[in-house]
Amino acid sequence: MGGNKPEEAAREGEDASKKALKKQQKDAKKIAAKAERQAQLQSVQQDAANEEDISVGKYGQPAMIQSVDKHKDRKFTHVQDLNPNIAGQIIWLRGRLHTSRAKGKQCFLILREQSYTVQGLVAVNDEISKQMVKFASNITKESIIDVEATVKTVAKIESCTQRDVELHIKQIFTVSAAKAQLPLLIEDASRPVKAEESEGLNIKVNQDTRLDNRILDLRTPANQAIFRVEAGVCKLFRDVLTKKGFVEIHTPKIISAASEGGANVFTVSYFKGSAYLAQSPQLYKQMAIAADFDKVFTVGAVFRAEDSNTHRHLTEFVGLDLEMAFKYHYHEVVETIGQMFTEIFKGLRDQYAAEIKAVSEQFPVEPFTFLDPPLRLEFHQAISLLAEAGVTIGPEDDLSTPDEKLLGKLVKAKYDTDFYILDKYPLAVRPFYTMPDPRNNGTSNSYDMFMRGEEILSGAQRIHDPDFLIERAKVHNIDIEKIKAYIDAFRFGCPPHAGGGIGMERVVMLYLGLDNIRKTSMFPRDPKRITP
Amino acid sequence: MGGNKPEEAAREGEDASKKALKKQQKDAKKIAAKAERQAQLQSVQQDAANEEDISVGKYGQPAMIQSVDKHKDRKFTHVQDLNPNIAGQIIWLRGRLHTSRAKGKQCFLILREQSYTVQGLVAVNDEISKQMVKFASNITKESIIDVEATVKTVAKIESCTQRDVELHIKQIFTVSAAKAQLPLLIEDASRPVKAEESEGLNIKVNQDTRLDNRILDLRTPANQAIFRVEAGVCKLFRDVLTKKGFVEIHTPKIISAASEGGANVFTVSYFKGSAYLAQSPQLYKQMAIAADFDKVFTVGAVFRAEDSNTHRHLTEFVGLDLEMAFKYHYHEVVETIGQMFTEIFKGLRDQYAAEIKAVSEQFPVEPFTFLDPPLRLEFHQAISLLAEAGVTIGPEDDLSTPDEKLLGKLVKAKYDTDFYILDKYPLAVRPFYTMPDPRNNGTSNSYDMFMRGEEILSGAQRIHDPDFLIERAKVHNIDIEKIKAYIDAFRFGCPPHAGGGIGMERVVMLYLGLDNIRKTSMFPRDPKRITP
Repeated sequence: MGGNKPEEAAREGEDASKKALKKQQKDAKKIAAKAERQAQLQSVQQDAANEEDISVGKYGQPAMIQSVDKHKDRKFTHVQDLNPNIAGQIIWLRGRLHTSRAKGKQCFLILREQSYTVQGLVAVNDEISKQMVKFASNITKESIIDVEATVKTVAKIESCTQRDVELHIKQIFTVSAAKAQLPLLIEDASRPVKAEESEGLNIKVNQDTRLDNRILDLRTPANQAIFRVEAGVCKLFRDVLTKKGFVEIHTPKIISAASEGGANVFTVSYFKGSAYLAQSPQLYKQMAIAADFDKVFTVGAVFRAEDSNTHRHLTEFVGLDLEMAFKYHYHEVVETIGQMFTEIFKGLRDQYAAEIKAVSEQFPVEPFTFLDPPLRLEFHQAISLLAEAGVTIGPEDDLSTPDEKLLGKLVKAKYDTDFYILDKYPLAVRPFYTMPDPRNNGTSNSYDMFMRGEEILSGAQRIHDPDFLIERAKVHNIDIEKIKAYIDAFRFGCPPHAGGGIGMERVVMLYLGLDNIRKTSMFPRDPKRITP
Repeated sequence: MGGNKPEEAAREGEDASKKALKKQQKDAKKIAAKAERQAQLQSVQQDAANEEDISVGKYGQPAMIQSVDKHKDRKFTHVQDLNPNIAGQIIWLRGRLHTSRAKGKQCFLILREQSYTVQGLVAVNDEISKQMVKFASNITKESIIDVEATVKTVAKIESCTQRDVELHIKQIFTVSAAKAQLPLLIEDASRPVKAEESEGLNIKVNQDTRLDNRILDLRTPANQAIFRVEAGVCKLFRDVLTKKGFVEIHTPKIISAASEGGANVFTVSYFKGSAYLAQSPQLYKQMAIAADFDKVFTVGAVFRAEDSNTHRHLTEFVGLDLEMAFKYHYHEVVETIGQMFTEIFKGLRDQYAAEIKAVSEQFPVEPFTFLDPPLRLEFHQAISLLAEAGVTIGPEDDLSTPDEKLLGKLVKAKYDTDFYILDKYPLAVRPFYTMPDPRNNGTSNSYDMFMRGEEILSGAQRIHDPDFLIERAKVHNIDIEKIKAYIDAFRFGCPPHAGGGIGMERVVMLYLGLDNIRKTSMFPRDPKRITP
């Protein structure tokens, strides 16, 4: 940022005009190419006319759909619903051309709709001309097509999800053509990750190619499923909490001050001044509690200006946050959160079995295990478990990421659960607003929760007394003036409360046993990526 | 922003140290005052001891709740649930001291829990000492207190929501004390807006005082209700769409390029470069459609760097966005959105009647009316209606805000609905990606939706063909290079689709008939406000 904007703009201007020129040349070429294609099409149509094309009007590329015709009588069947019970019926279907293979006087194609595929056949016969077969075989992969077809039973087709039927196509039209050269093929991007990857010549698509071409990548069955599971996690989170009396709130992302000192915060230019992007909705959740909403949750973007290039960090992610007033003990809140996770895991298992299966077909993993009620361990127990395994942690040390991973394995071996709560962290490793445990010097009323050995929630009883908050901030050498607004939030009476923040993409990644958080963020943001 | 940061920092440092000094002095005073209060309390307790206080242990300010005791046997009753059927029972209750009034040997107080209030009485008797009454009468307003009390039936108490019972208090403890001087009183902030505001000496609380002290302001019954209705709008939006097969997605807020030219966009410093805050999730919703998700919605923050200081503009608001592939006509989408609104309005009416009533008690308004199915007018019909009322609009002009307001009144008078769809806007007034209506030169396949005469949704069929998109962008003099990523999203086959973006706070404001959008944003952001 800063002073040299005019030059930059000028340079950008030059670049832009050069690029614009190139672009125009390119466009001109494209338009020429298109004109040629259309001419070819016309000539094919001409040929057809010359050769008395018996299929005229039954194939082609109609005008772009601009909402002229309602076709109210035309009912579409979904690929998912094709089965031998409707054999003999004539149906309409809109899908993508997944693959095609011309073979003499016939063309086999695979039609795909979301995660489902079916085989289609266009073959020269009394009603179908060779021009029509040629047209079908020239449709580019990933184009969207409308077909009218007769459903026929067939011997097992291994390459499709609908194995017992195929479609004998009577009409075929291109609704939206894909360009001929694709940066990746759905087939390649969908290929299962196998244990023995060394064998075979299978093309793999690397992560950056996937993310650069996310629109194509997202069309794989696994991705179609991952983002449905993700929608499920959010829905279950909200539904479970709403049923428990929580109120959904929305907290601002643009904030005037970075509450915890300003490290790792993005700066925003705000009219003539500047502002920050919120690292968490915590202050606002707590204000909602101080404002008598009693139990609140919020789902929204959270920003971290951390230059971490790992499998589990994003610079922007979705926070599932909750905060709850309690009567006497923060375990009232820990139990509520624990129950919530149990209900989310049950909901996923019961309502998203097909999606979980679709993901595991590409990315094999052990099914997620959990206990009901969930396992709660105290920090000292974790230290003992690690000590038994030969890892020494001091009573006031935090766990490193490898410690957490190992602990996850030890807990899984001992208790057979992929989810557990780790309670009573050392006070020294938690933020200043964490309530100390008065009975146990050096520990605090705080907790993390883990899935498959990785942290997915961090939370605590918060200090609700302004004077004590000041005392604790001083211990942490925090400038009281900078957190004045936060402290003042507790001067008008505030119930004791606790809560936590959950990384949504981490929950989905770990539940499905995926290896990278970029797989569970539809358009991930990291220090090196802000496109597409 | 810019070059003079070191000086600023130094100056800030100085200011900070001065402030810190002041603060320390202030703190010292406060601590002294607190010590004095505690000394007084002790002396009261001493007096009590001297005078054989029969209520020792039944009142006071216990230690801050730090989760030592679980009090598992103590069940709390909610103020809302107090009624004559439980007369005679002894209950525990946690609430705020709304008001109190000492009167000889007794103290009347009103206890408040969220939107509900009940009268309490502490009176000297066999079990209750005058020291205890004095303690009760000294509790500051808005403090959170625990009381044990006998429920008694009573003649109508007009000043409370629970009119037929009062509480005879046996024990009373302060859980969290509010400071003595409050910047606003809940009573004042809750006072109904009356038609004849001239009469009386009622204290009113102005908007800025409310927003500066939002924690207190949010405690009014109307605000408790407004944000529950808001949660309801979001829940209904999601539930209705989920039932219709929509998938929830999350779109990035940090983006690399401002898709519509860069006006009104906030800039973010992003590591060594810069980025922008998304003005809408539109590109991403459309990419999800191109990626075969078929029907998607997203709920999230949307940013507008517009220096608009009006009753209906925010710089950050919650967008309820949806996008949907259709088969042949965008009215498939318009009908879906229309049905969705009908279901939201029905859901609010049926499930949030108490909240709607609570809001209208402070802010009286005509109940919201709607038709099922909703009214759809075309733009030329709107022009005719306005012409009949003496307002002339050209066929290619947009409607001004006053035109819209007037039109809302005319539509209400003619059709008795506060919600309607205005379809087929002039092409000239819509963004470049809007699909023109091929049968009707100059019009487009686009629509706005209105509540009480204000726009709450804007939407359209989007152009899904990359070449046509380029053609239209050129007509709008848009630099094609700058929207390359957007155009490229349609090169791999994309179904025809339409959608819309809804301003969540506007829907709540207009449904409830409120006069300012700041009333429906919990922590509103405008060009002049980014705190609290």
